[in-house]
Amino acid sequence: MTGSANEILMAIIRKEAGQIDAAMQADIDGLTARVDQLLVDVLRYSLFNGGKRIRPLLTVLAARLCGRDDPEIYQLARAFEYLHAATLMHDDVIDNADTRRGRPSVHVRFGTVAAILAGDYLHARSMAIVGALAGSEALNVLSDATGRMVDGEFLQVRNASCFNLSEEDYQRAILEKTGLLIAAACEVGALWAGGTEEQRNAVREYGLCLGSAFQVIDDLLDYQGKTSATGKRVGNDLVEGKMTYPLIVTVKRAEKSDRERLCQIIGEPALRRIALDEVTGLILKYDGFHMARKKAEDMAIAALEPLAIFSDLTRGREKKAMQGLVQYVLSREK
Amino acid sequence: MTGSANEILMAIIRKEAGQIDAAMQADIDGLTARVDQLLVDVLRYSLFNGGKRIRPLLTVLAARLCGRDDPEIYQLARAFEYLHAATLMHDDVIDNADTRRGRPSVHVRFGTVAAILAGDYLHARSMAIVGALAGSEALNVLSDATGRMVDGEFLQVRNASCFNLSEEDYQRAILEKTGLLIAAACEVGALWAGGTEEQRNAVREYGLCLGSAFQVIDDLLDYQGKTSATGKRVGNDLVEGKMTYPLIVTVKRAEKSDRERLCQIIGEPALRRIALDEVTGLILKYDGFHMARKKAEDMAIAALEPLAIFSDLTRGREKKAMQGLVQYVLSREK
Repeated sequence: MTGSANEILMAIIRKEAGQIDAAMQADIDGLTARVDQLLVDVLRYSLFNGGKRIRPLLTVLAARLCGRDDPEIYQLARAFEYLHAATLMHDDVIDNADTRRGRPSVHVRFGTVAAILAGDYLHARSMAIVGALAGSEALNVLSDATGRMVDGEFLQVRNASCFNLSEEDYQRAILEKTGLLIAAACEVGALWAGGTEEQRNAVREYGLCLGSAFQVIDDLLDYQGKTSATGKRVGNDLVEGKMTYPLIVTVKRAEKSDRERLCQIIGEPALRRIALDEVTGLILKYDGFHMARKKAEDMAIAALEPLAIFSDLTRGREKKAMQGLVQYVLSREK
Repeated sequence: MTGSANEILMAIIRKEAGQIDAAMQADIDGLTARVDQLLVDVLRYSLFNGGKRIRPLLTVLAARLCGRDDPEIYQLARAFEYLHAATLMHDDVIDNADTRRGRPSVHVRFGTVAAILAGDYLHARSMAIVGALAGSEALNVLSDATGRMVDGEFLQVRNASCFNLSEEDYQRAILEKTGLLIAAACEVGALWAGGTEEQRNAVREYGLCLGSAFQVIDDLLDYQGKTSATGKRVGNDLVEGKMTYPLIVTVKRAEKSDRERLCQIIGEPALRRIALDEVTGLILKYDGFHMARKKAEDMAIAALEPLAIFSDLTRGREKKAMQGLVQYVLSREK
C-alpha cells in the first residue's frame, strides 16, 4: 500500500469510527429509560469492545462514493455494526466460544439467555433502521444477506469434518458467512445515496470480494495468529472440525499416507484436540498456508477491479480508503 | 358467545388457516433449491405443527375490517406466524422447554444451533416481508414490538422469584411478552389496508387487550391445564420461579404464615420443583385462580370496546370473528 493510501485510511477510520460510535451511543442512551438495565448493559458490552467498525465504515464510504453525504449516514451505518454484533453473540453461543477480542464473550459474561435475546434485539433494530432510512429494497438486501448467513451456518455444520470438502463448497460458505453482509453494508450505502445500478453493483462486488478475502485471512489466523493479538485460541477451527482453506488444499495435495492420517484426525474429535502441531506441520509441508494467502490476495485484487468505475476525482479520498481497506484486510494480524 | 359468532369464527379459522398455510408452504417450497436441506426441515417442523394461526388471522381480519382485501394479505400475514415461530424457538432454548404442542421442541429435535439459527432466519424473513408489503411505518411497529418483547424477557428474568412483584410489573411483562406482537399483527394489517388513524388505533388496542387476556389464560393453564391438551408440563412456571397472576394475588392476600411459606418455596429452586400441589392448594385457598380468570375477563371486555367504531355492516363478518376470538381466548383449554 502506498504510504498515502494507508495514511488516508487510518485518518478516516479514526474519524469515522468516532462518529459511528457516537451514533450508537446516542441510540443506547435513548434506550436507558425505556428498557431493562441488564439489556442496556449487554448492548454496551457487545457494541463497545474495541471493534474497528469496518462494516459501518463501508456503508459511509460507499454512500459518499455514490455521491451523497449527510450526517444521517451514521444513523444508517450503525445498523451494520448492530447486525454484526448480533451475529457474533449468536455465533459465540453456537460455537461455544469463551472469548471475543480478549474478553469473555457475551454469553459467558451475561449468560446464554441474555446473549440470544440481545442478539434478537439488535437484529430487529438493525432491520428497522435500514428499512426506515434506506427503503424496502435495502431491507431486502439485508434480509437476503441475513438469510444466507444462516444458510451458511447450516452449511458449516454439514461441512464439519467433511474430509472431501471442495473449494467451491468453501467459497460458498465464506461468501455466506462473511461476504454477503459486507457486500450488503456497501450496497445499502449505495441505495441510500441514490447511486446508479452500475455503482450499486460495483460496491456490492467490491464487498463480496473484500469479505471473502477477509474470511480467508481469518481462517488463516485461526492457525497462525497470536492469541495475544487475536484474542482467540489458536486451532479452534480444527478442534471444531471446520474445514477451512489451508486444510482443504492440504488434504487435496497430500500423499496417500499423509492424507489418511489427516482423515483419521479430522474424523475424531478427541484427536483433533491434541493434533494441532501435527496438522500444522502437514499444512506447512504441502504449502497450504501460502496457498491460502495467495487465495486471499486473488480475492483482494478482484475487490479492487469494480472500483475502477469511480473516476470522479472529488471522491478520490473515499476510493483511496476503500482501496486501502483491501490492503488492510490482507495485512491484519487480528 | 352466540352460536353464530362462534360458527362464523370457526368457519373463518378453518378457511383462513388453510390460505395462510398455503402462503407459508409456497415460501418454503421456493427455498428448497436455495438453502441447506436441514434449514428447510427445521422451518417445516417449526411452522407446520398444528398451530391455529391466530396472529396471521388477526392481520387478515384487521385488514379487511379497515377495508382492503386481496390475496396479497396472506403473504403479509404469514410474517406474523414466522415471527411467532422464531420467538418460540428462541424461547424454548432459553426456558429449556423440552416439548411444544406435545412434540419435542425444535432444539431438542434438531439441536440448539439449529433452533437459534432458524429463529434468526424467520425473524429476518418476517421483517423483510412486512417492510416490503406494508412499508417502513409497519416495519417500525414490528421492530418496536420485537424490541419490547426482548425487554419483556429480560424483565421476566429479573422478576423471577421476586416475591413482591406488583400487578403493574406483571401487566407490563405480559404486554411485552404477548400483547404487543398480537397488537402489531392487527396494526400492520390496518396499515397495509390504508386504514384511518382511528381504525389503526382501535385494532391495536383490541390486540393489546386480547393478547394480554391470552397470556393471563396461558399462565392459568400452566397451573390448571391438562398436559394431554396443552402439550406442556403443568407447573413449569413455578419450577422456573415465574411470578404469574395467580401466585401474585395469592402472595398479596395470604395470611402471614402462608405468605412466609410461599416466600420460602419461591426462594428455593429445589422446593419449587416438589411444591406444586402445596402451592396450588394455597392459590385455591386465596381464590387466586378465580381472580386470574376475572382479570382475563376484564381484559377481554376491554378488547371488545374499541371494535365499536367499526359499524360498517359489510364488514360484519370480520367484526364478529374478532369478537368471537375474544371469547375463544377465554374458553381455550390449550
